[in-house]
Amino acid sequence: MVHYPVYNKRGRVICTAVTNFDIHDIARCASTFGVRITYIINPLDSQRELVNRIIRHWEKGAGARYNPVRKRAFDRVRVRATLEEVIQEISEAHRLPVKTVATDATWQERSVSYGEMRRLLQDPPQPYLLVFGTGWGLARQVLEESDYILAPIEGVLNYNHLSVRSAAAITLDRLIGNR
Amino acid sequence: MVHYPVYNKRGRVICTAVTNFDIHDIARCASTFGVRITYIINPLDSQRELVNRIIRHWEKGAGARYNPVRKRAFDRVRVRATLEEVIQEISEAHRLPVKTVATDATWQERSVSYGEMRRLLQDPPQPYLLVFGTGWGLARQVLEESDYILAPIEGVLNYNHLSVRSAAAITLDRLIGNR
Repeated sequence: MVHYPVYNKRGRVICTAVTNFDIHDIARCASTFGVRITYIINPLDSQRELVNRIIRHWEKGAGARYNPVRKRAFDRVRVRATLEEVIQEISEAHRLPVKTVATDATWQERSVSYGEMRRLLQDPPQPYLLVFGTGWGLARQVLEESDYILAPIEGVLNYNHLSVRSAAAITLDRLIGNR
Repeated sequence: MVHYPVYNKRGRVICTAVTNFDIHDIARCASTFGVRITYIINPLDSQRELVNRIIRHWEKGAGARYNPVRKRAFDRVRVRATLEEVIQEISEAHRLPVKTVATDATWQERSVSYGEMRRLLQDPPQPYLLVFGTGWGLARQVLEESDYILAPIEGVLNYNHLSVRSAAAITLDRLIGNR
């Protein structure tokens, strides 16, 4: 979950603020679909500290006693400053360069279908990193540098403005869900 | 989106408070997948007034100017006190008794698969109402009185605690999404 570099509604590259609900929803989805680790990426120290406080609350604080099930979801959440750092960390842990899969709300020239990506994910030793942008979506540079770009989620009404929470839920279900 | 009757984590029937993010996320999903109307159901006057204020903000207030795309999603949101009222309203509007489809995180004896429900939804004159519970899920009585109960969303890790926002997103995609 990337907070920088992403677009604002005017198409300028910005850093978004962390949304508490994003962390909860995406951690719970990740736990449901067996995502190894969820990374919250934000270059601002104060924002990372905020996320770490939220994680501590649910992992070790009052939240862990109030809702042990939520604790399980938060066990797999990490906070990092940059996407590059995350790519390096995963690649080193797996001793294999991680493949990055960017997501976007529009079709790109090299958009990959969900079926094709689902088949790729079956390849067990290869680590993959799904990249979601907050705000108005990932900056072009992130798309260009990614190994794959996933097809947009299309509904039926040409309304193309899902929250990143909904988009992540649907994407994980399409790629990993047992239907 | 039902706030009463639903369970709390101890299995007691309660009325939950409205969550701002639920309304946004579900309105945006509903617009994406062509849901005719989204009903927020809460028996408390003060809670309904809160939701109506949020809707007005995005439909006619500062929110409509700030984000016209969000306005489109909120155009299809209504607030009602009870599920019965919603059932009656839809049935009268369509001159056909609406079929209710309850959702639950566990398997029920008469759980219907997503494929089967998807086929049923193709039947154009018949109106359907998808019913989602907040809190720890819809009270048994709602499940028993519904025409159908949809199968749970299963991931891969036996972690079965999606937010209602994520569950609604995945359900709409499975039933209506064009993949």
